[in-house]
Order: sequence, then structure tokens, then C-alpha cells
Amino acid sequence: MKEKNASRGPLLIKNVLVEGKPNDIFVDDTGTIAAIGEGIARTCREDAAISIDGNGDLALPGMVNTHTHAAMTLLRGFADDMPLQAWLSEKIWPLEAHLTGDDVYWGTKLACLEMIKSGTVAFNDMYFFMEDAARAVDEMGLCAMLSYGFIDLFSDEKREAECRATERLVAALSGMQNPRIRAAVGPHAVYTVSPHGLRWLSEFAMKEKIGIHVHLSETEKEVSDSVSQWNKRPVRILDECGILTPRTVAAHCCWLDREECALLARKGVHISHNPASNMKLATGRAMPYHWLREDGASVTLGTDGCASNNNLDLFEEMKTAALLQKHAWNSQTLLPATEALGMATSAGARALGFGKGILAVGEPAHIILVDSQAVCNTPLHNYASNLVYSCQGSAVKTTIVQGKVLMKDRVVTGEEAILESASHAAAALVKRAADNSG
Amino acid sequence: MKEKNASRGPLLIKNVLVEGKPNDIFVDDTGTIAAIGEGIARTCREDAAISIDGNGDLALPGMVNTHTHAAMTLLRGFADDMPLQAWLSEKIWPLEAHLTGDDVYWGTKLACLEMIKSGTVAFNDMYFFMEDAARAVDEMGLCAMLSYGFIDLFSDEKREAECRATERLVAALSGMQNPRIRAAVGPHAVYTVSPHGLRWLSEFAMKEKIGIHVHLSETEKEVSDSVSQWNKRPVRILDECGILTPRTVAAHCCWLDREECALLARKGVHISHNPASNMKLATGRAMPYHWLREDGASVTLGTDGCASNNNLDLFEEMKTAALLQKHAWNSQTLLPATEALGMATSAGARALGFGKGILAVGEPAHIILVDSQAVCNTPLHNYASNLVYSCQGSAVKTTIVQGKVLMKDRVVTGEEAILESASHAAAALVKRAADNSG
Repeated sequence: MKEKNASRGPLLIKNVLVEGKPNDIFVDDTGTIAAIGEGIARTCREDAAISIDGNGDLALPGMVNTHTHAAMTLLRGFADDMPLQAWLSEKIWPLEAHLTGDDVYWGTKLACLEMIKSGTVAFNDMYFFMEDAARAVDEMGLCAMLSYGFIDLFSDEKREAECRATERLVAALSGMQNPRIRAAVGPHAVYTVSPHGLRWLSEFAMKEKIGIHVHLSETEKEVSDSVSQWNKRPVRILDECGILTPRTVAAHCCWLDREECALLARKGVHISHNPASNMKLATGRAMPYHWLREDGASVTLGTDGCASNNNLDLFEEMKTAALLQKHAWNSQTLLPATEALGMATSAGARALGFGKGILAVGEPAHIILVDSQAVCNTPLHNYASNLVYSCQGSAVKTTIVQGKVLMKDRVVTGEEAILESASHAAAALVKRAADNSG
Repeated sequence: MKEKNASRGPLLIKNVLVEGKPNDIFVDDTGTIAAIGEGIARTCREDAAISIDGNGDLALPGMVNTHTHAAMTLLRGFADDMPLQAWLSEKIWPLEAHLTGDDVYWGTKLACLEMIKSGTVAFNDMYFFMEDAARAVDEMGLCAMLSYGFIDLFSDEKREAECRATERLVAALSGMQNPRIRAAVGPHAVYTVSPHGLRWLSEFAMKEKIGIHVHLSETEKEVSDSVSQWNKRPVRILDECGILTPRTVAAHCCWLDREECALLARKGVHISHNPASNMKLATGRAMPYHWLREDGASVTLGTDGCASNNNLDLFEEMKTAALLQKHAWNSQTLLPATEALGMATSAGARALGFGKGILAVGEPAHIILVDSQAVCNTPLHNYASNLVYSCQGSAVKTTIVQGKVLMKDRVVTGEEAILESASHAAAALVKRAADNSG
């Protein structure tokens, strides 16, 4: 399926380093990498409508954020450093109660802008008013898997309403016929969704051939409450309800035991590691990467929402992941730079179904160019090490999604208007919540 | 003491936010803040030789890096993700064995460039060829406390040579008569310096009225070896040798016990927290901030060298510190954003003796301006939260040290030449080491 209204021609990217070696990249008018190699610019030059001189910069597959709540950029910095329950019940939930579709639209526009500026090409989003989020994604040119956060709180009535809301979103996204936007179902977590609800979502997702996006074993309390109430750990509940599939992304996964890692690997579930959020909210345990790796599980990277991170920079997240794993599991060699890069690119792209996340002929041209002359790349002993341990998203100069240039030399069209509108939306939201709290 | 050859006049910074409130800042021709307040631009305008329009950006005291080995920028990404002993003995030490004064000069130039670009105005450096480092600092305009890394390996002969090297550096720095450059002594650690050496350094530092820069209790092995060999923990050894003073900066301090925290606080020692380095090298324990805070100790922030971080961005380090402390000590409220900012600014400046690290009349004008229109500051619910949890050093637009503008709108004079020369120096160093390893 080709994208509607695609306004692009063939693209030639000259003079870039791919895995440390000089290359040119030619992208055809469907946004697919058609040729890649040293010196191919000579033969492809005349076919290209647009030509970019990479100046020896590093070309990489774009980053993929496998767990976020994009519109929560509007809550960035609204409340931090509080005990979890007070933070949620006194700050986050009261504000979210006043969210409108317009807020979600502007919050998602701001999130997309931030992702484009830090080299992210695709993301996995779970929130509310997702038709408005889809509109923002459509306009901004990114790829996204979008799900409605399904929360039935074990009530039959609420469950029925959540099922209809899920159906409506999936129908609406399908109607957009935009190959950059994929639908998923979004069971929030085992402590907010009934087994009935989970089973319905599993069957609906299978029928619609769409993904599943779920929070899993983020806190110790989630696991112990689940054991007290159901005599089962969360992974087993999800398994019994059909939620563990190769189309599933499970976020956090801090409190997995050894057997659960093996089961998730066997089921082909994609794990989204969210180290910054887990540390900020003191979940008390790092995702057991060493076990998941041993079992050959698919481990990807996510930032979580901006209320608990508070940015969407996957370069920063790669470093945080590589540092946290070493610290938490007492190993200087765990999660080396090349593996962190793979989590943020190829593993993420496969998890969301947006190609293989590599630079190769036949792959969608989701490409970023990272400044090889930046301080963070000086000296350039090892590109993977610099990208993970030294650089941040600000070193990305150019972001290309499906062959379309969304940022060139750090300029994104319409940036100022988005910043202004998102600021206004955030301020108005806080005011509405305050006016209604008395 | 005024700086030699200071080429600056009075400076007016208009229209900035200081702690969230609109202000102008007037800096006199000695580089001291002479006035600060809303609307003072009206009265000071005619006195200013240079005027900067802050456009509503956030003005902050500059960041202070209290533990680094600046010239190790040349080793950025040279080796990572290895077991500690192999990393040191197979990679880092063989390369360092071929370091020249010129390498240290270019490595320090590169480090200063990186610090200016990420809003750091002062740093605490321990390394070799420190006269060359001082030349780089002098040229680049930053403030630094410089020490020669004293390592006698318990040999009398080596100790004498190290004493002379220390004396030579202190005399050379004193001869520069540059108030931005302060000398310190640099006892490397209790496992590399004899008690004789430590005592000599303590007495020499007291006589010269200069600082002390030491590594302390970084690894569990350092503590257990010390107990095995001397039946004393490292803090006690340093204390008995007179190293624990209010002029001392002790880096790392991961493996302090409860009583050691209290002693360090009582002695007025400044602790340098280095979270990224500690996590990357899997020291296995986070500095016990909760105890040090309880005792009222001075806790500051450092990046360590670029072989073990791998950048010098104190914004990133503030976030890493705030996240690590919450994770390690299982508290959502430990090390909130305002305290992280204080560690990186006021506590650091006091530790190195470069003012109080606040924006106030009479203080040296070490000022940075952070882009209030950046994505990381949108929305701007809370400036401290955004600075710590959302922004990185790349959000700094302007860096001013002692009233001199070192970066304006992200442009540092001479940047390209430094990047090129540092790259060449790094490549040549690796080649020399390789040629000599056969």
C-alpha cells in the first residue's frame, strides 16, 4: 500500500558512512532503498529529484521508540520527585481528567517534533483521543502504531464501552489508509483490565491482524497484588488470556522471573525496556536483560511518556539502558554499544512492523544522518560507542521517513508554530484543571 | 587578582529568566556581576560595551565539573564494554604510555570546547603533562583546578619523583598568574599512593593553601584490599594522613559506610558524585546520597574522564544522578531536580573555590543561557525539572566565564580547528601505540 499524497521523488544521499564505511544511498519514489554502495551516486545522480550531501556523516536506520504516551509531552515537568501514588492521584490523573482531543493533537505534534529532532522515525503509542493523535502523526510524517488505552477496572459495563472505543479507533485508523499508521489494541495492564477484557482484546487483535501494546510487571506491587488476588503472576494471566503473541509489545518487564523470560522469548513477545522511567519512578529492579538475551528474546527500547522521563530522546535512552544494565546486574560487559543500537533500531522496527530497521536494498528508507563532525563524534575511534555513550539526539542532522526528508540540517518545517500551540495547550490544560479543582 | 590580558568590557545581558522570573544582568569590566534585576537594562545600557538579548532564555550559574581527566577526550570510544582489568591493562594504560604533552594539550582543548558547548564553566582535572593542560585552559577561557596525578606505588624513589613533579606543576601554575587557574595536589588513591606520599601531599597543600583532588572508595575491591592490607578502610587512611580537609574533593565515594559519610561531612570534604562512570564500570553501588545529605555533606557532580562516560555533559550527568539515586536507594523523592541543579552549580563552584555558583551581585559572572524555546523547555511548567530531566547540554546557547562570552548562539571561535587537531592527535596516538606494541 503506497502512502496517500506522497509528495516526494527519488532521493539520493551521497557521501555517508554506513557502519563506518563510505557509501551512497539511493531511495526510489515509493520511499524504498533501491541501491546502496560506495560510488553509486555516479549512476543514480540523474534519477534523483532530491540530492543530499552527507559530508561524511553517519547514516543509520532511524530509531524506534516502542513504548510511549506521546501526548504526555504536555505534562513534561508538571510534577516530579513525588511518591508514586501522590504523583498519580494528586497531579497526573486530575490533569488528564481535563484532557481534550485538541490537547492530544498538540501534545502528539510536539512529541513528533521532538522525535524527528532526535532521530526517531517510528513509535508505539498508547493513550486516549487517539484519532487526534493519528491526525498529528499523519501530518508530521512519522510512523506509529497507535492504541487506545483499554481500562475496564473489572466492570462489565466499562468493558463494553472500552471494546466499542477500541473498535472505533481501529476502524478510524484503517479508514486513513496511511501505511505509516498501524493500529494496535492497548490492554493497559493486568491490574486495570479484567481477564474478560484481555480475552476480547486478544481475539479482536487476531481477527484484525493488528498488534497488542501492554504494560507488564513494571512494579513489584503489580506482581505481588496479582499473586494475592489471582494466585498467578501477571505473565501467566496475559498468557492464559492470549495476549502473548509475536505481535505483542510488553513494556517495562522489570519484575520478570527466570521462567517468565523464557516464556516471553518462546512466545515471540517484544519487550520494551524503559530504563529512564523505571529509574525515575524507582521501580526497584532493572529489566533482566541478561536472561532475556540468553533466551533469545526480542528486546527493544522505549522512553515511556514525558511525565516520567522527561524527554523522548532514544540516544539518551540507549546510554541509560547500557549503564543501568551494567549497574543493576553487576557486569562491565552486559549490553554493549552494538546491542543497544540494535535494540533502538532493528529490534524496534521489527516489533512495530515497520521493516527490518536496517539500511539495505528493499527496506523502507527510514534513515537518519548523525553529524560526524560533532564534538561527541570526535575522535571517531568507534562509531557505535560514540552513538551510544557520547552522542545525544541533538547530533542528528537529518531525519528521513519512507524517503521523505522531515528534518534537514536540524530544521523542521513549522517548528515554531508547534512549540507555541503546544505551550498554549499545556498552560490552558493546567488552568482548566486548577479552575475545576476548587 | 585580575586576569592578565582580559579583553572584555562591561556586559549587559537583557531579558532573561532567573529562577523563572524576568531579569537583566549587568557585569562590570572585572567580570563580576554588578547588578541584577528586572528593568536594570534601562539604567545600565550606556555603560555596557557588549549587550546580549536573552530573548527570555533561562540564565543560570554555569555548571561545575568536579571530577574529570580532561585530556582523556582523546580516548573517547577507544574501548568500552570490557572487564575492568582487561580494559585498563590491554587498552587504556598502553595508550596512555604513549601520551605526549601535545596530546594532553589537544585533548584538553577538545574537552574545554565540549564543556563550553554544554554549559560548563569550571572543572577539576587530574592527569599528566598538566602544564600543557593549563595552556589549553588559559586559551579556552574556562576556570579549572589542575592537579598532577600522584602515583608512587609505595616506592620511595618514585615518591620523591612524584613530589618534585607536584612541586613543579604548582610553581608553573602559580607563575601563570591566571585567576581562572588554581593548582591542587592529586593523590590518585589509597591503593596507588603510600601513606608517606599522602602525608607529604597534605602538608604541601596546606603550606601552599591549595586544594586536594583524590579518588575515594570507587570500588568494593578498593575497600576490601585496604582492609586486608592495612586493616583500615580508605577513608580512615586518608584521614590519618591529613587528606580530609575543606579544600579536598573526593571523587566517586560509592562504597562509603554510614560512619564514613558523617566523618566526610564533619571534615568539610567535597564529594564528587560520578554516576555515569560508576554505572558504566559497574562499581556495584551508588554513592549513598541519602546519608551524605542527612549529614549535611557537600555533594557535587563530576563526569569522570571520557574513557568511562563518554562525554562531559553535566546536564546529562544531573539526570543520571537523579535517576541513579532514586533507583539505587529505592526512593521516588531522593535527589529532586532542585538539589541536582545545586550539586552541579553552587556546590561545585564552592568546592573548587570559583565563587558561590549563584547569580548574585558581587559574584564572578560565570553565566549560561539556556534556550527557553527549545523542545526540551516546552512546555515550561517547571524550569528546574526541565533543566535536569529533559534538557541536555545542547540546549545551552551562550556560555560566559568571568564576564567573557565564550559561546554565543552555540558558536565557539576556533571550533573546527580544535576538532581537526584533536582528531589527528587521537589517531596518531593510537598509531604510535600500535606500532610499538609489536
